[in-house]
Amino acid sequence: MAPVGPRSGEAIFASVERVNAELFTLTYGAIVRQLLTDLEEVEEVNKQLDQMGYNIGTRLIDEFLAKSNVSRCVDFKETAEVIAKVGFKMFLGVTASVTNWDAEGTCCSIVLEDNPLVDFVELPDTCQGLYYCNILSGVIRGALEMVSMKTEVTWVRDMLRGDDVFELQVKLLKQVPEEYPYKDDE
Amino acid sequence: MAPVGPRSGEAIFASVERVNAELFTLTYGAIVRQLLTDLEEVEEVNKQLDQMGYNIGTRLIDEFLAKSNVSRCVDFKETAEVIAKVGFKMFLGVTASVTNWDAEGTCCSIVLEDNPLVDFVELPDTCQGLYYCNILSGVIRGALEMVSMKTEVTWVRDMLRGDDVFELQVKLLKQVPEEYPYKDDE
Repeated sequence: MAPVGPRSGEAIFASVERVNAELFTLTYGAIVRQLLTDLEEVEEVNKQLDQMGYNIGTRLIDEFLAKSNVSRCVDFKETAEVIAKVGFKMFLGVTASVTNWDAEGTCCSIVLEDNPLVDFVELPDTCQGLYYCNILSGVIRGALEMVSMKTEVTWVRDMLRGDDVFELQVKLLKQVPEEYPYKDDE
Repeated sequence: MAPVGPRSGEAIFASVERVNAELFTLTYGAIVRQLLTDLEEVEEVNKQLDQMGYNIGTRLIDEFLAKSNVSRCVDFKETAEVIAKVGFKMFLGVTASVTNWDAEGTCCSIVLEDNPLVDFVELPDTCQGLYYCNILSGVIRGALEMVSMKTEVTWVRDMLRGDDVFELQVKLLKQVPEEYPYKDDE
């Protein structure tokens, strides 16, 4: 039997269960609005969205590994490419690109031109410090932590702030060698 | 040219933009968890989810009317059928059925056997009064209000509470004749 290779994000996206993107967009908008009402401080909302994303990411990685047939990435460079090309396609139906690598190969940008989270969204003046899509940075951070990569993920460009694209900087802080929870002979 | 009839929920669902259902499920779970943390009282969470759903419903009806080619329903009976057969399919990718009509044709049940909101969800003992899917009842109420039907929507059966299906009772309280905001000769 031929070995099973990784599947394209497109193929996976076509095969998984999906819901209407507008329902998702409006539901996400309802979360952000709720947090703004409950927490008042925009900075707190940013933190909370990131934390929610982190929790989602730690769960979503399982679905990702199960459906994508992606095997262990050799390094952070390959990992970033897989997130952009397979991950974003598989979950949001959009493709992202990877740019701005530093010399060490430990920091890059993921660039999104299309982002279903922000359809119909306009930020009022009172929300200028808000990172509306902060859930996404949390998802990436959470998912990567589950495969032993500790990262820092920050927004560099944001279309809701007038930029021409969304740009997320992903910085590898530490790569923990995977350890089994117990030794074989224990 | 042949008149354009209403499209099936299936056909619409296939043609609209979609996102991964698991991402939606986990995102919705994150909202509920957040509300439970912030509001503490389960009863308050139920109210808030319903209100969020209402706001979403008042927006979603536009997408529904634009994409479905459904024309004015002749009565509440037809409306309920359209919600179950076209609406649920178009937004959540599942089909619902309509039963338990009262004699007046103003109260019925919408029954869901499959509900992507609750995949992997189990309620802890502390959340026994929670209507986890209360956003759905709010969506229906909000959407119907936009087409001049004031309704009360309540859960009769809930799989998270051990029932075999989800059953939403939809009761028509008042049907407001549609009025234009101004007269033609004004």
